[in-house]
Amino acid sequence: MEGFSLELRDQPEPLEQILVDCRDTLKYGVKTGHPRYFNQLSSGLDIVGLAGEWLSATANTNMFTYEIAPVFVVMEEILLKKMHEMVGWGEIEADGIFSPGGTISNLYSVLVARYKRFPEIKTKGMAALPHISLFVSEHSHYSIKKAAAVLGIGTDNVIAMKEEHILLAIPSDHIPLYVSATAGTTVYGAFDPLDNIADICEKYGLWMHVDAAWGGGLLMSRKHSFKLNGIERANSVTWNPHKLMGVPLQCSAFLVCEKGLLQACNQMCAGYLFQPDKQYDTTYDTGDKTIQCGRHVDVFKLWLMWKAKGTRGFEILINKSLELAEYLYRELNSRENFELVFDAEPELTNVCFWYIPPNLRRIPNGPEREKLLHQVAPKIKTRMIEEGTTMVSYQPHGDKVNFFRMVFSNPATRKSDVDFLLEEIERLGKDL
Amino acid sequence: MEGFSLELRDQPEPLEQILVDCRDTLKYGVKTGHPRYFNQLSSGLDIVGLAGEWLSATANTNMFTYEIAPVFVVMEEILLKKMHEMVGWGEIEADGIFSPGGTISNLYSVLVARYKRFPEIKTKGMAALPHISLFVSEHSHYSIKKAAAVLGIGTDNVIAMKEEHILLAIPSDHIPLYVSATAGTTVYGAFDPLDNIADICEKYGLWMHVDAAWGGGLLMSRKHSFKLNGIERANSVTWNPHKLMGVPLQCSAFLVCEKGLLQACNQMCAGYLFQPDKQYDTTYDTGDKTIQCGRHVDVFKLWLMWKAKGTRGFEILINKSLELAEYLYRELNSRENFELVFDAEPELTNVCFWYIPPNLRRIPNGPEREKLLHQVAPKIKTRMIEEGTTMVSYQPHGDKVNFFRMVFSNPATRKSDVDFLLEEIERLGKDL
Repeated sequence: MEGFSLELRDQPEPLEQILVDCRDTLKYGVKTGHPRYFNQLSSGLDIVGLAGEWLSATANTNMFTYEIAPVFVVMEEILLKKMHEMVGWGEIEADGIFSPGGTISNLYSVLVARYKRFPEIKTKGMAALPHISLFVSEHSHYSIKKAAAVLGIGTDNVIAMKEEHILLAIPSDHIPLYVSATAGTTVYGAFDPLDNIADICEKYGLWMHVDAAWGGGLLMSRKHSFKLNGIERANSVTWNPHKLMGVPLQCSAFLVCEKGLLQACNQMCAGYLFQPDKQYDTTYDTGDKTIQCGRHVDVFKLWLMWKAKGTRGFEILINKSLELAEYLYRELNSRENFELVFDAEPELTNVCFWYIPPNLRRIPNGPEREKLLHQVAPKIKTRMIEEGTTMVSYQPHGDKVNFFRMVFSNPATRKSDVDFLLEEIERLGKDL
Repeated sequence: MEGFSLELRDQPEPLEQILVDCRDTLKYGVKTGHPRYFNQLSSGLDIVGLAGEWLSATANTNMFTYEIAPVFVVMEEILLKKMHEMVGWGEIEADGIFSPGGTISNLYSVLVARYKRFPEIKTKGMAALPHISLFVSEHSHYSIKKAAAVLGIGTDNVIAMKEEHILLAIPSDHIPLYVSATAGTTVYGAFDPLDNIADICEKYGLWMHVDAAWGGGLLMSRKHSFKLNGIERANSVTWNPHKLMGVPLQCSAFLVCEKGLLQACNQMCAGYLFQPDKQYDTTYDTGDKTIQCGRHVDVFKLWLMWKAKGTRGFEILINKSLELAEYLYRELNSRENFELVFDAEPELTNVCFWYIPPNLRRIPNGPEREKLLHQVAPKIKTRMIEEGTTMVSYQPHGDKVNFFRMVFSNPATRKSDVDFLLEEIERLGKDL
């Protein structure tokens, strides 16, 4: 904060200062479009997507009514239809909404599943419902728990499911309602067996949600889409084009296989906004399908990128990101200072690994080595940030101490950037 | 949709087509920045705000961690602090978050009020809670009902409160939890008596929320801020700079008078994102305070506008919008073909009125005239949209048939635009 005038004053500042402020904001920010920025599932800066976002900002309108966003509302419908087709719902009258991020999309899935089974929830609240339980796959994103907390279900009623028999073990007065399967977990990039989960959901009458926020992009790839086989049997899907598809933040779609459910679940019929006596077909007013009122235009940038790339263009980008992950996997396998968290070809672009500094390689496996290894990634990352050369995420997971998680979603990244990362980690960590 | 190639294909389209698409998108869109666009509470297009949004899009980052949005996270803190001061919380360690719209900000208020009183809600859900009731003032926004539906409280438990004794009339096994007062209602622009409501809330131990999504901007005006007297006694406040202050969509702040509550209510401690062993003070990671995970950068455009205008600049704009409302009110009073819904000086920029076509003036007051009058505003609006000359909202409200609701928030609007609107309504409606 030194030398950066952040405080707000009563009097205006001159234009020159405003320009300095803009430069400083970019200067001290993180270059998320840089080919060596690997810190999050969203990275890169697609120039057509950026143009789309700039145009959206200039249009400065709101998705809630067709009246003031006619073009964007129609684009949303076209995009949802296209995404329905790619999920395998081409024959179904499906529905959906673009929401402010995957966590909100996942919240929609629980909200709609609950309403479908217990429509009285809307007026009577949870007091009128039996005890309900939600099931999530083992490495599911924390957003389902967050949804349970927000929606008044409670995080205790979110149960991690490894095997089918967990469903049989829950108390008889608890109603199993919903399963969230993950297509591309956040840390490992793993895929749940969707067809098996769909079988279980059918057998027990459960709502099946697929959180494909991260992995959904593979549906664009004829080579890799098989990893999501079974997604067509889901009742709802979360798919974030702002991740693997490289659309600027935010762009998240919630898809639901039944038309009318979102509207019934969320509508409040506000007379000042959703006048029934408008000149046009008011089913184009999307605002009453949402948990928001005003809603940002997140569709145009995706629509424009799709036009500019075509489905095949996205496929090329995504295949390339997966090739880079395979390349990194092979490199890690061949370098003796690195250890893979899983010795298996990556299914998505996540590759998880430890860097083992020379000093640690002399220590035998055991708690002492684990304790030291746990400190390696944070120390290297601190140096990385200080030097500003590259950026990659790390975390512990389950019984595994801190490891690096590499992900690829930036089309600007090349093999040489992967080599750079490994050499940089060695350079920054070899004295640890 | 004729002549506008909206469909998405497998193959990319040439750059020329992309440019045509951009032009068409703007051409068929609604010009929300036009000085004669009065359709919503958000209008206008501030050029510094737009530049801010463009820069935010270029930075393409995410508010969830300080690590990848250091500048924007600090700016959010500075903005919240500034807004706390203007609310009158300068001495309190308050908190807040920018959210995707006022409805989500209002949802936060109920969420946090519920958690404060019943922290077990987070893990146990509503099953562990007594029957709770929320109270709203008469013309409150529908978002509180929406929040009750989403949060599992149920819309039946949202009670419109006209008088204090309603609190005494609720069943003894129902716990009154929360009151939402409105500072600037959506249709009338009216202000609840906040000090009186604060007295009631203190007496009964209720959470006091002030929905100042629309009226909050008046806090920038030394002339008009008295209308929000008592807001300093609230537990939480919603304030949307994207409305009266003219910040591009979306920019909504939820303010809460207690530090730590948002975090406690919403945190899930996801290890992959909120590593405790980071190099910096991780209380700067705002992501676990929210119901989202990823969060769009909505703060920069407001920060930059505040720099460029100063608090005094916002004051000038807002005072001017109120002057236009007063001008319109006087004009309507003096023109015989118009009728005011309320014969009182506007408190905010809302002015509600009927246009009475000559044919209707011959019909005596009664159901027949009401029925015909109800059709006038929609018919005029249809013609307005077809001709594309101006745009204003209408709605029925309570026992009142369709009337026009004018609002001012666009700094580009002049008195001549107000004159134009009235003349245009007459021109389009005189044969009805």
